[in-house]
Amino acid sequence: MDSVEHGSPPQQVAIIGAGVIGAAWAARWLLRGCDVMLYDPSSETPQIVDEVLGNARYAWKRLGLTPQSEGSLTYAKTLAEAVQNAELIQESAPEDLQTKKFILSEIERSANQGALIASSTSGLLPTKLQDEMQHPERLVIGHPFNPVYLIPMVEVVGGKHTSSESISKAMSFYVHAGMKPLHVRVEIDAFIADRLLEAVWREALWLVEDEIATTQEIDDVIRFGFGLRWAQMGLFESYRIAGGQGGMEHFIRQFGPSLDWPWSKLTNTPEMSEELIQRISDQSEAQSGHYSVRELEKIRDANLVDMMLALEKNAWGAGLVIRELRDES
Amino acid sequence: MDSVEHGSPPQQVAIIGAGVIGAAWAARWLLRGCDVMLYDPSSETPQIVDEVLGNARYAWKRLGLTPQSEGSLTYAKTLAEAVQNAELIQESAPEDLQTKKFILSEIERSANQGALIASSTSGLLPTKLQDEMQHPERLVIGHPFNPVYLIPMVEVVGGKHTSSESISKAMSFYVHAGMKPLHVRVEIDAFIADRLLEAVWREALWLVEDEIATTQEIDDVIRFGFGLRWAQMGLFESYRIAGGQGGMEHFIRQFGPSLDWPWSKLTNTPEMSEELIQRISDQSEAQSGHYSVRELEKIRDANLVDMMLALEKNAWGAGLVIRELRDES
Repeated sequence: MDSVEHGSPPQQVAIIGAGVIGAAWAARWLLRGCDVMLYDPSSETPQIVDEVLGNARYAWKRLGLTPQSEGSLTYAKTLAEAVQNAELIQESAPEDLQTKKFILSEIERSANQGALIASSTSGLLPTKLQDEMQHPERLVIGHPFNPVYLIPMVEVVGGKHTSSESISKAMSFYVHAGMKPLHVRVEIDAFIADRLLEAVWREALWLVEDEIATTQEIDDVIRFGFGLRWAQMGLFESYRIAGGQGGMEHFIRQFGPSLDWPWSKLTNTPEMSEELIQRISDQSEAQSGHYSVRELEKIRDANLVDMMLALEKNAWGAGLVIRELRDES
Repeated sequence: MDSVEHGSPPQQVAIIGAGVIGAAWAARWLLRGCDVMLYDPSSETPQIVDEVLGNARYAWKRLGLTPQSEGSLTYAKTLAEAVQNAELIQESAPEDLQTKKFILSEIERSANQGALIASSTSGLLPTKLQDEMQHPERLVIGHPFNPVYLIPMVEVVGGKHTSSESISKAMSFYVHAGMKPLHVRVEIDAFIADRLLEAVWREALWLVEDEIATTQEIDDVIRFGFGLRWAQMGLFESYRIAGGQGGMEHFIRQFGPSLDWPWSKLTNTPEMSEELIQRISDQSEAQSGHYSVRELEKIRDANLVDMMLALEKNAWGAGLVIRELRDES
């Protein structure tokens, strides 16, 4: 694990926007013993939070990480009330630049000046988000992965005006949340993860559009194939092994030429016609429709928990994050 | 699991070409009790096979799948000797069309007419491979994933002249090998898996070329992030859950627009300059150089075994393949 300066955990965390991502942030912090103030104007919020928190508690129990005492959860009536005493404010509003900028200005109006403001955006540039902020130095991106209460990765990205102190603080806070923060050093659209995800997503859409494969077939190739490799080693480490004793250099010299083969249709995006949307929806229904989304969540979480326990046994990858949490308690 | 017609397992399997892939095919068949004739002119072959077979035996023992009796392994002195009595001939030569075509013609010269001939190519088109064969109807692609003795997926692809009987036979044989074969119905360059892998690989190379991320950082984003999701659900099923109660249709309508954002540099390939090759090699060395490739293999295999056991416990994904093997014995 990278060494991250260990400051204090945030005493109080504010979550602004409680869809699937915001609610799961709340769950993670509560299970780490921090008090959470949550604000979302939607009437569905308490139900979403209850469900997500239920899933998270169950998952952490299976991990053997039930906290000695959970933090307290408060539904704030206004955004101002939610943020006023928070040390960390995690914005998880819809993925729209203007919406997020508006919310950030509202947050600034009521937050303590020392508060760290983090956005969960999966691809909007921090420099754009902060360009009208009064204290832009305290804005960072903290981009998590669904389900946030289980997946350890969070991408931390600063904008042109973000202070290095804010980056350090974010890294330290997220370690306290039981995560594996990665500082993305260069600010680019979509950061690192969504660059890679976008590439796969486009190619997968073409495979469906061209009627080469169904959603089920694509998923099967991943989960019975290279997905198993990537849960424990990434792309380069897997290929390093494939290079045999010659390692990465051998592999890359051998594999290099095929890069120019006309294998992919990556630049263009298939038109999202009604027909394509319907085809994907129908195929997904045939593939997974016999489970409700709630059931799929439970299956996913049980698998993630047990795979992470397996990795912990081997002191590797995501298992190390769990081990550190366990050692700490 | 898809239903695959269950014929008899092959009595004898010939492996032509015993690098990492061919040797691992041999190991898988031996552990399934089938006799293997192996041919590779390289003097390093016995050492590679010994090492790979050692890894495979250890992994299967940890899976609790040690066979009652292993098949016999014979190093053939000639290609002709290797293939003459084989029911399945698996070609695993270097990834070069002319080399493979030459080997296929050599195979045809000595094989029984009833033998199934499978190529391990990860992307060459079967129609091109078979275009000078005397009995092209018996050629299929059987594209496996490293480590072949553990990863269940194998893509089965037929060419213009492949008979449907050959496809069925290949599917049935690979189920006997303890795998999860997927019939890729449309013949395209790189099939399904390498389309997706190529997309990620190109994007990852750009991230390194542009000095946005190191190989370690990219791998971390994968293995602490979305790689964990993909080991048990694929792309679409994961996104279906992200869509909440609205499921896939909701997700895709919401996510659609960002497809046109200029996030990726996917068409162009970075020039594989000496500098880029060296940078990747150096970063990979810094990331994983403290382990030998042999050590990395053992770590990978231990993780794969334990993750698959975890999935078996939950009766899901790759774990189901293991469960079927266990139930059978």
